Amino acid sequence: MAFLRPLNRQRAQILMEQEGLDGIVLIQPESIIYGTGARPGGAAGWRRAGAVFVIVPADSREPLTAIVGDFYAEEFRTASGIDDIITFPVWVDLIDISKVPNGQLTERLSAARPPEQVHQRPANFDRRQTFALLAGTLARRGLSTARLGTEHAFLPVADQACFNESCPNVRWSDASKLVSRLRMIKSIAEIERLKLAGQSAEAGTAAAIAHIRPGCTADELLSVFRTASAQCAAELGYNGPVLANGGITIGPGATGKGRPAERGDVIRLDLGCVVDGYTSDCARTAVLGWPSADQQAIYGALRNAFEAGLERLRPGVPLREVHATAMKTMHAQGFDMYCRGHFGHGLGASVFVEEWPFIAADETTEIEPGMVLAYELPWYIRGLGAFMLEDQFTVGARSVDAGWTLSRELAICD
Amino acid sequence: MAFLRPLNRQRAQILMEQEGLDGIVLIQPESIIYGTGARPGGAAGWRRAGAVFVIVPADSREPLTAIVGDFYAEEFRTASGIDDIITFPVWVDLIDISKVPNGQLTERLSAARPPEQVHQRPANFDRRQTFALLAGTLARRGLSTARLGTEHAFLPVADQACFNESCPNVRWSDASKLVSRLRMIKSIAEIERLKLAGQSAEAGTAAAIAHIRPGCTADELLSVFRTASAQCAAELGYNGPVLANGGITIGPGATGKGRPAERGDVIRLDLGCVVDGYTSDCARTAVLGWPSADQQAIYGALRNAFEAGLERLRPGVPLREVHATAMKTMHAQGFDMYCRGHFGHGLGASVFVEEWPFIAADETTEIEPGMVLAYELPWYIRGLGAFMLEDQFTVGARSVDAGWTLSRELAICD
Repeated sequence: MAFLRPLNRQRAQILMEQEGLDGIVLIQPESIIYGTGARPGGAAGWRRAGAVFVIVPADSREPLTAIVGDFYAEEFRTASGIDDIITFPVWVDLIDISKVPNGQLTERLSAARPPEQVHQRPANFDRRQTFALLAGTLARRGLSTARLGTEHAFLPVADQACFNESCPNVRWSDASKLVSRLRMIKSIAEIERLKLAGQSAEAGTAAAIAHIRPGCTADELLSVFRTASAQCAAELGYNGPVLANGGITIGPGATGKGRPAERGDVIRLDLGCVVDGYTSDCARTAVLGWPSADQQAIYGALRNAFEAGLERLRPGVPLREVHATAMKTMHAQGFDMYCRGHFGHGLGASVFVEEWPFIAADETTEIEPGMVLAYELPWYIRGLGAFMLEDQFTVGARSVDAGWTLSRELAICD
Repeated sequence: MAFLRPLNRQRAQILMEQEGLDGIVLIQPESIIYGTGARPGGAAGWRRAGAVFVIVPADSREPLTAIVGDFYAEEFRTASGIDDIITFPVWVDLIDISKVPNGQLTERLSAARPPEQVHQRPANFDRRQTFALLAGTLARRGLSTARLGTEHAFLPVADQACFNESCPNVRWSDASKLVSRLRMIKSIAEIERLKLAGQSAEAGTAAAIAHIRPGCTADELLSVFRTASAQCAAELGYNGPVLANGGITIGPGATGKGRPAERGDVIRLDLGCVVDGYTSDCARTAVLGWPSADQQAIYGALRNAFEAGLERLRPGVPLREVHATAMKTMHAQGFDMYCRGHFGHGLGASVFVEEWPFIAADETTEIEPGMVLAYELPWYIRGLGAFMLEDQFTVGARSVDAGWTLSRELAICD
């Protein structure tokens, strides 16, 4: 599966102009992948600033610049298609003797490492050095006194001074919201990954439901899920690892993994797969045996509220309307004690599966084509069970596409 | 596998007294697990401040206080054994009707949610509310004007103001280094996890080496590794998911996954497993067919340097001596162009596998009982191959224990 840079430069230009920014400097690993299509390298793994920078000028005709560790530079260049790449030494020693004429091994190694090349390497990366490279690059790109945004929702306080010290004339501000707004709209390559993850998880969930029987545990069902979803992904042509995400709750305790299944137990299966960093998120509810009247009443109410809210899940509708509709429908069915902060969230490559924006009471963001949203109605009722219905939807120009075809009925396992 | 709180309060008291601190406030998800033995709940998944707090007074006789989301409170209380738990509403609705006498469903639900209980929930969590709870708790614990440390290597700039605004009289400082120093020493439960992960990875690596043949790819070997390591973990009695970590490089390109294996190719297998969040990290090198003299020379030199450095990997020795010894041994064998920033790192529950401290030229930290260290000598030589030898060592009172018994010889696959 080819991965093309998700970032839309035209859209980035519009958002930056709205906020009066001349550019943004990406520093969060997930944003780097979004902005370049390339992985930022091991140095970014510590989640500190200075391990990688990507400069995105507001003017979409201006090229991107990346500052990355030398060990990752070649792979980064190939994956991102970015020409302007500045490198700095990380801790890893890579030496290239492939173009050195034949000779003794040590001679070839010495020839491949001329004296001017680095002979000392830092334990990780040298933050003073990388911020100096940032300052130099901004100067070269005419951005030394520019208004630049960076990611304050990620930037650790311990690293903040580096920005002001290395680039004292830049007017820095927080562009976290802007970056979230950019990442909210998925590219075709991102949607492809989320769909593949969703399809794999659907196969895994169906297999787990088919496996439900008296005495089965949440761990056992998760194991069935993992095997079946990995097999489905392989059949769909994906050869990377498919990680399992989410949880299964069995019985009236309504939280955690719960007990080995007994007749009458409600079973919540909230499961996703991770493909190339992109996580799906859907859920179904099952009952072992015949559901009680109370269990049917709760699930039926959630199902009705789900469908009512789904009617409003359309391009152009503010997300809060979906929340209000689903909530109102629950209350109108006699469940006026029901309260829930969000009925879903964006999906993408964030570390945590729940990405901004949220389907929440105060979320005025409008639904837009290119969003991928998990939409969910859960209720955890201790004494009765954990109930949940969730699908992931890809928003198109005029409609939304559900990720799963698996029935939304309460699954009766008998 | 029971998980007991890894934090050693006596050691924490000594370190805090050295730095003149009256306490620390943990905010990073991994530190919360370290400090309490409990998972901080979904709200911590966004990696922002205010989703969870754990107050650790310097005086080790004083109890811990945790501020966590209401949905996770019960599980947190059980797992952590902490009595003083303050909760705040997160987005999830949990209602308990298990103790409400029989009646109509809606009546029982209403009875379980008296009017004074929360009827509105935030989209995620309300940071103003959680910081107000922190301020109130510090006041109650007599810490309103105390010298407190928190985690500035984690704390996002966007959340920093909350600390000063909610607790204006606290003298805040950065305790990131102190927390790293605490986490550097593993508890028995942590060592148990790292050993299980290491054993599983060893079985997986042995299986992958046995599978090497002409035409095999890195993905294929990784898949063999995943299956065999998961099976080993299951045989050892671990029923959770065992994630695979690391990489395999085939052939003279020396980076990335490389090509399908050809005769004469060097194959680097740098593989670990993740058990309960704890990641092992060891590596072996193989050759398909008979190694060339150059390949033997490089691997032999790395092996010698590995063993020389290992002689110094003993309690009481500063880590930089291990680095100096390994480096000197490489140089003494004619490879004076070799340079590498670190020869290993701590292992634990950090998001990225490489945890402070590093076996680096400037690391004065002494090796101490209870550390678990990955010790490695890699060399990436384009034109020849990627070479690597790595083991993980648990430091005891007088010795260090290697995690693997798999031979450290260059594996010859013919």
